[in-house]
Amino acid sequence: MSSTEGKTITCKAAVAWEAGKPLSIETVEVAPPRDGEVRIKILYTGICHTDDYTLSGKDSEGVFPVILGHEGGGVVESVGAGVDNVKVGDHVIPLYTAECKKCKFCLSGKTNLCGAVRATQGKGVMPDGTVRFTCKGKEVFHFMGTSTFSQYTVVSQYSVVAIDPAASLEKSCLLGCGITTGYGAAVKTPGIEGSTVAVFGIGCVGLSIIQGARAKNCSKIIAIDVNPKKEEWAKKFGATDFINPTELKGSVVDHLVEMTDGGLDFTFDATGNVHVMRQALECCHKGWGVCNVIGVAPAGAEISTRPFQLVTGRVWKGSAFGGVKGRTELPGLVADYQSGKLWVDQFVTHHQPLEKINQGFDDMHAGDCIRCVVNMGFNDAP
Amino acid sequence: MSSTEGKTITCKAAVAWEAGKPLSIETVEVAPPRDGEVRIKILYTGICHTDDYTLSGKDSEGVFPVILGHEGGGVVESVGAGVDNVKVGDHVIPLYTAECKKCKFCLSGKTNLCGAVRATQGKGVMPDGTVRFTCKGKEVFHFMGTSTFSQYTVVSQYSVVAIDPAASLEKSCLLGCGITTGYGAAVKTPGIEGSTVAVFGIGCVGLSIIQGARAKNCSKIIAIDVNPKKEEWAKKFGATDFINPTELKGSVVDHLVEMTDGGLDFTFDATGNVHVMRQALECCHKGWGVCNVIGVAPAGAEISTRPFQLVTGRVWKGSAFGGVKGRTELPGLVADYQSGKLWVDQFVTHHQPLEKINQGFDDMHAGDCIRCVVNMGFNDAP
Repeated sequence: MSSTEGKTITCKAAVAWEAGKPLSIETVEVAPPRDGEVRIKILYTGICHTDDYTLSGKDSEGVFPVILGHEGGGVVESVGAGVDNVKVGDHVIPLYTAECKKCKFCLSGKTNLCGAVRATQGKGVMPDGTVRFTCKGKEVFHFMGTSTFSQYTVVSQYSVVAIDPAASLEKSCLLGCGITTGYGAAVKTPGIEGSTVAVFGIGCVGLSIIQGARAKNCSKIIAIDVNPKKEEWAKKFGATDFINPTELKGSVVDHLVEMTDGGLDFTFDATGNVHVMRQALECCHKGWGVCNVIGVAPAGAEISTRPFQLVTGRVWKGSAFGGVKGRTELPGLVADYQSGKLWVDQFVTHHQPLEKINQGFDDMHAGDCIRCVVNMGFNDAP
Repeated sequence: MSSTEGKTITCKAAVAWEAGKPLSIETVEVAPPRDGEVRIKILYTGICHTDDYTLSGKDSEGVFPVILGHEGGGVVESVGAGVDNVKVGDHVIPLYTAECKKCKFCLSGKTNLCGAVRATQGKGVMPDGTVRFTCKGKEVFHFMGTSTFSQYTVVSQYSVVAIDPAASLEKSCLLGCGITTGYGAAVKTPGIEGSTVAVFGIGCVGLSIIQGARAKNCSKIIAIDVNPKKEEWAKKFGATDFINPTELKGSVVDHLVEMTDGGLDFTFDATGNVHVMRQALECCHKGWGVCNVIGVAPAGAEISTRPFQLVTGRVWKGSAFGGVKGRTELPGLVADYQSGKLWVDQFVTHHQPLEKINQGFDDMHAGDCIRCVVNMGFNDAP
């Protein structure tokens, strides 16, 4: 039993008081976990474009004040009544895509989306409708069921998975979002083995898709990005070709169709740009090409195409968190990381302490950053 | 050897001289089949909305003058050199979706689209780039590789399949398009067995989808049409529910999601209306719902949705000719028709002689017509 169990913990967190403003490092109070909840000491967290998107205010479902962050790694500090899937001291990754193993989604065998905490998670509250964070006397909302930009956070028992404590939390925290989202989307695609693949957007997610395609022995892996610096990154991770659309005379779709004798077997959008999503569909091979939309588009943005694209055999689908069931499958990805099969360390280009988390957001925008890992400031962190 | 073999045949045909005008019954000359071609005596033909669409001039690829029609049944009159899949006297159905069995599409095992005659078919000519029809000294284009609105037509050997001569050509001609398009789309959908299904647009294709869903023991088959007369039809063919969107207070999507505790497993658009295609996607169940677009949309029309619909697990796909490989699979459907497993006779609500084919188009628009079969006027027709 930890000395803090059952008590409110006072710690540091990066609070987003309002949209469009930098985060503020504040002292916050984190209430103990209630029934079915888990309080986690967060040691490291990545910064992802989704945090930035919500902070910008463009996310119509965003609520403030809020503690953002969804790509964390930590240690269980205490658990509420009824929690039996993790225990105090476990090394864990919070899961923004929960897995309760008993709702109709989890039982369907068809999806990694879980219905258990979805409604409350979307509103920034715990499943009982309340929050565990307060700051300066004000209640602060949760984010994506994880809120990893706090030294301590509280999550549903369905939103956390224990991993091998021998794995570096400083690195494996990235499996909480970007790497898993891309790698899972690729390796879990039926029929991808040996096929031709195009990946639009070469950030953490895009590189992870490339890595997954390489793991599946794809014969051609074409990386597409408007940033020429991404060519080296893409090829390091396994891309066979790189295209910068701004350097083409014609359309990227025509170029890709020509390069692949009719189009790609599988394409992935990791840009969030709806125009790119259309290109990713239309460069698919007639008769069987599948486009997987992964990026998060701005609120209200819509994708469009002529239905003829579908009638002639292209498929437009999407995935979240790479189609990975967090509690069931993430420990396996950690094992793949440990065995060297799955690259993770190579994604970390920047580090910041919690106090400089806003600099981490700037790093992310700079173009030469794949992932910035934030050290939450515990001197005893492994 | 028939007495006409190797000679030009003079016969009747319905010629579309220009867009937006009624067809003209004309005397046309039909040249003999060249290498790899088959000349067919057409005994019966259905009239389909696609014929009407091209005749209207809205099809940007439509060329005139042309002999329309793509849902025919007939008897092989003669064959060109190298034809070995059908012989003189065979009862046949022309195939607007060819099957050469040797192009990369046919060999892929993933699609029924064939590349062999696609380019020339789209231009209204035979694979060698010329036409076999002349009328009043003018060359007349082919349509969809079939041109069944002529008493004699010439098709590629890849665009025709022999069927059991014991099957009624007057009925089985409908397997050349509408029935196969709908029935195939349903029964060839992986995982459809026992699932929930919604069908938008209750014409020949929609009823055929319903029939396919019933054959797959779907637990709920919801038919949707703005024409209240279609309820009786839909239920006769196996629909469990009928919705007329014009009678709803709220949106049809909300209504369907509520009826099905979260959305449909599979939906099918058989309307060609891009707004309906969106509804058909958005009423799919989160996590696994699949929308199959079948209808042909007006030139330039686009489908749209928020990409979130895909990221949360819905799939937007399409199919042509029900995903059925004509030469390989159509004889099996004819056998299903003969055994009573597949309803065909029930679709025929109207009959017209060739001379009154324009009346057949009017019949189709009247709303109480499922299919009008045109008798091409041979007194010896079986």
